[in-house]
Amino acid sequence: MAFKIGLLGLGTVGTGTAQILQQPTGRHPMVQEIVIHKVGVRSLDKPRSISLPPEVLTTDVEGIVTDPAVDIVVEVLGGLEPARSLILQAIAHGKHVVTANKAVISRYGDEIFTAANQAGVYVLLEAAVGGGIPVIQPLKQSLGVNQITSITGIVNGTTNYILTKMQSTGAAFTDILSEAQQLGYAEADPTADVDGLDAADKIAILASLAFGGRIKLQDIHCEGIRQVGAADIAYAEKLGFVIKLLAVAKRESIVDTSEEEMLQVRVHPTLVPTAHPLASISGVYNAILVEGEPIGQVMFFGPGAGAGPTASAVVSDIVNIAAVLKTSGSPEELHPLLSCTHQHYCAIAPIGELVTRFYARFLTKDHPGVIGSLGTCFGKHNVSLESIVQTGFQGDLAEIVVVTHDVREGDFRQALEQIRTLDAVDSIPSILRVL
Amino acid sequence: MAFKIGLLGLGTVGTGTAQILQQPTGRHPMVQEIVIHKVGVRSLDKPRSISLPPEVLTTDVEGIVTDPAVDIVVEVLGGLEPARSLILQAIAHGKHVVTANKAVISRYGDEIFTAANQAGVYVLLEAAVGGGIPVIQPLKQSLGVNQITSITGIVNGTTNYILTKMQSTGAAFTDILSEAQQLGYAEADPTADVDGLDAADKIAILASLAFGGRIKLQDIHCEGIRQVGAADIAYAEKLGFVIKLLAVAKRESIVDTSEEEMLQVRVHPTLVPTAHPLASISGVYNAILVEGEPIGQVMFFGPGAGAGPTASAVVSDIVNIAAVLKTSGSPEELHPLLSCTHQHYCAIAPIGELVTRFYARFLTKDHPGVIGSLGTCFGKHNVSLESIVQTGFQGDLAEIVVVTHDVREGDFRQALEQIRTLDAVDSIPSILRVL
Repeated sequence: MAFKIGLLGLGTVGTGTAQILQQPTGRHPMVQEIVIHKVGVRSLDKPRSISLPPEVLTTDVEGIVTDPAVDIVVEVLGGLEPARSLILQAIAHGKHVVTANKAVISRYGDEIFTAANQAGVYVLLEAAVGGGIPVIQPLKQSLGVNQITSITGIVNGTTNYILTKMQSTGAAFTDILSEAQQLGYAEADPTADVDGLDAADKIAILASLAFGGRIKLQDIHCEGIRQVGAADIAYAEKLGFVIKLLAVAKRESIVDTSEEEMLQVRVHPTLVPTAHPLASISGVYNAILVEGEPIGQVMFFGPGAGAGPTASAVVSDIVNIAAVLKTSGSPEELHPLLSCTHQHYCAIAPIGELVTRFYARFLTKDHPGVIGSLGTCFGKHNVSLESIVQTGFQGDLAEIVVVTHDVREGDFRQALEQIRTLDAVDSIPSILRVL
Repeated sequence: MAFKIGLLGLGTVGTGTAQILQQPTGRHPMVQEIVIHKVGVRSLDKPRSISLPPEVLTTDVEGIVTDPAVDIVVEVLGGLEPARSLILQAIAHGKHVVTANKAVISRYGDEIFTAANQAGVYVLLEAAVGGGIPVIQPLKQSLGVNQITSITGIVNGTTNYILTKMQSTGAAFTDILSEAQQLGYAEADPTADVDGLDAADKIAILASLAFGGRIKLQDIHCEGIRQVGAADIAYAEKLGFVIKLLAVAKRESIVDTSEEEMLQVRVHPTLVPTAHPLASISGVYNAILVEGEPIGQVMFFGPGAGAGPTASAVVSDIVNIAAVLKTSGSPEELHPLLSCTHQHYCAIAPIGELVTRFYARFLTKDHPGVIGSLGTCFGKHNVSLESIVQTGFQGDLAEIVVVTHDVREGDFRQALEQIRTLDAVDSIPSILRVL
């Protein structure tokens, strides 16, 4: 029995996918049952590192998603359009879909999964988060019997590379960013990575799976790493922390009522204690830590991007769909662990309600009494401090670092608003949360 | 639709399993479809932390595995018998089986999976390796499309606890073992753990999944941690290593021929470079590192034992079987990623053929020329050395540590045989491999 795929896109991930399928030796025998029926490309003449029969290549991508011979459409185009429309068209034509497209799923997951459930097809997306790391499947199939309480991930390799390099070299963000761009670890326009938007797409997907509800991307509080200075990294290290861009989704408690529960879903640079499992994840690697009852902590670690790892995830999804089809023929009911069963939207708490520890760095005039007036301001707003230390000077300005106990973010922000109005305060270059 | 399970055993894992099933809130909706039909126990009168209807409890375990109402038999008895016989009986009666029993699967996996394939039933065993860590499922479903080249695991929490504590305190093996026994981390008879037998069971199972062939347990070279001294840990640290009990399964290359390929499957204490992902796994935690093409390195980390994590793995297997049954009704063909498809035995290379780096510690008389004669002996046997250092004294004896380059283990062992005959050599307290 052979399963025919229509591959949309033959860039690095598409090429990696085709290469796995062309070399089945040493892999699961199911890989041999997957046939590349059509590959949609922009240009037929472009030189390619992979050899495919000429009749397989086509520029007619619509022809692929409507081709009655195609069982599974594999979308590795990236970007929002035409990826979204082609996925929806494929579903409408009864095709199962495998995609690596986090941007499309995090924005249009609701319409895509609604359409897929109506059409009785699967949409799998292991490659959309964590590259090759198996995390979507384990969340669906192994961890779903737990009451998941949190997911905390380093899910963007570019920012983790930059922060790791800033830590090891002491260099500034902009210098390391340029270097990462030269090495191909960061894009010419690095916004999606360094401003946390890519991580927000991914935590939206993970939160949706872990907590069984849809997530509105715009509800996710998102901060990037541009504000992280070499001074912050150095001082964090002294305090026993490393700074990581974390994507967090959390629920505080499992309640046995039908009352709607609020989730936290957020992306921000965070001081992580050096003994924490996520602290040692360095360079372009990704890791996702899942906590739940009764399992406790489990972590998945691996390459978060790259042609090979991402193609591994894509092909595993293809094979998983083929295996279910082989077992069930034309299922009347979709496999309940592979399909998306939830339809409601999760309620996400406003960031002001978050209770967390904070780290903040201030530049102030070098006057006596400044530390006292900062402390007084925080006290007035119910912000209890763990430490307030003058760490040095930047030019004429004194550098003061504050670390709080657990405080309500709204209270902390109000205190900062008042502090900004103080004569002695020049600026607040960085405000980071502490794990 | 409800799926009825017959639970064999109500110890810590059995109780944990029942607790998850009794509290479905906040878990995957499939958990609600699992019904505890019968629970086999030794005594009906024993006080228990869980409340079950009296008609569910029975001492007639044979009655459970032959009960026509039972869909899935869950074996959490542990030990070889009656676990093995009950599993086989359950299969003969058309039941699917979920087991946490690494000892039975590593020894009798061949007859169990042959019987299961004949009967058209599934035997799942996520809980047998790594406690709650999803690793069996990802190997079957996500990573199988890769050409797996190696699996390297810290799969025994007891020994990892002991080695971690030896490292942090500088204490001797026997002292930490007593402490671990008092804390319940080590059994009164610690043989299975500290001599590496438990790890051998687990790597047999992982190797079988990763390389698609059966593994004979007696082919696995197995060394425990009794030989690891405080002196080794201290000197390893100076060299930039930590000592871990690793379970390793490896194939050197993927060849496109039908020639039989030799695997390495072995368990031994190992010097692991501190920057290696496995080096930071401490205490009772487990981690399994999988390497393959094109995925590169992925690692799974979590609690390797305990009632809650193990029960999480057991229930995930139950739910996975139920989900496939729901989709396929009575399948004519078993799901090819969940069933065991291989039947041949893997060829395992003798340990003498291994090429690796070695660390060895010698106690010798404090004579001039000893280092020279050690060096000469190694040279004669083709063993190229990286360093040979007198690290100190133990009483009157000089302590000398040798680290080799990559050498054939057989050559190294022959050199050691000759070295043992030297007048100046008192003993060789430890011989460790270097990752």
